[in-house]
Amino acid sequence: MLEIEIKVKVPHIDEIKKRILTIGGKHSETVVEEDLYYNAPHRDFAQTDEALRVRSAGGKTILTYKGPKNTLMGSKIREECNVQLDNAGAFDTILKNLGFKPVAHVRKLREYYTYQDFSIALDNVDHLGEFVEIELITENNAEKAAKRVDELAETLGVVGERISISYLELLLSTQ
Amino acid sequence: MLEIEIKVKVPHIDEIKKRILTIGGKHSETVVEEDLYYNAPHRDFAQTDEALRVRSAGGKTILTYKGPKNTLMGSKIREECNVQLDNAGAFDTILKNLGFKPVAHVRKLREYYTYQDFSIALDNVDHLGEFVEIELITENNAEKAAKRVDELAETLGVVGERISISYLELLLSTQ
Repeated sequence: MLEIEIKVKVPHIDEIKKRILTIGGKHSETVVEEDLYYNAPHRDFAQTDEALRVRSAGGKTILTYKGPKNTLMGSKIREECNVQLDNAGAFDTILKNLGFKPVAHVRKLREYYTYQDFSIALDNVDHLGEFVEIELITENNAEKAAKRVDELAETLGVVGERISISYLELLLSTQ
Repeated sequence: MLEIEIKVKVPHIDEIKKRILTIGGKHSETVVEEDLYYNAPHRDFAQTDEALRVRSAGGKTILTYKGPKNTLMGSKIREECNVQLDNAGAFDTILKNLGFKPVAHVRKLREYYTYQDFSIALDNVDHLGEFVEIELITENNAEKAAKRVDELAETLGVVGERISISYLELLLSTQ
């Protein structure tokens, strides 16, 4: 499964929100997401471009592994695996026992919207500002998905510089 | 949290079963447990005496980390952390992406009994035979718990050699 995603820092997120609703997009939920990122004892994820994240949001805990990023037509593509956990604290203990170390904490208010098979997120990230993410999940046709993401971005006026690094990397780069 | 546990290979498991019921123990469930053990890329759990296991049983998947074993009065003591997962396949993919490797598969039919705050398991392990495990979980008073495990073993006639290694290690030692 491939995730095709763009992320753009925007000055006026309310304008994007209006356009999403105008074309028929639906607000699905608003959540506070607390992400804890870990680094491995045997390789440096900052070098290998991987991520291991435990996200707590809406009473659920999700473990996510993301593989190295590739790009296709300006969209970000990477392998992603998700597993729901029943206990963030016990999993943190297991990771630490295995030698993994927490390296960063990212907190954001995220409004989720859906439009067709797109996921759109409007993010207000602590210490970083406001961003729009547009995402499509595809089994294999990455090129077509990237083109569709591109077209929706234009329709919504999401026209700034595309950011290919994560909030984690943005946050670490500002420290 | 500490797990105080003894494990004994027994010739006549039905005799033990009768004694458990005679003293008031209750059968709680019988399950087939499929355990997949992993080794780490950065250290050898066979050397460090740790275990990382994903158990599938009764429709549930549980991740367990066990720390190095210590012994107290013949009982085995080790740190144990458990996390329930909603997806064994995705977690296997994450572990493999992180460089962990599956090293053994242990399958057993396990009958669980409870007596007071003890957990008793009667195990029929593929390729290994029949075993009794008696376990107590304690927050801090390991010595008292070990004594109680010892007394219950005597009452039940669980009198053979105490095995301080895991089914994983037993299985690997027979290969």
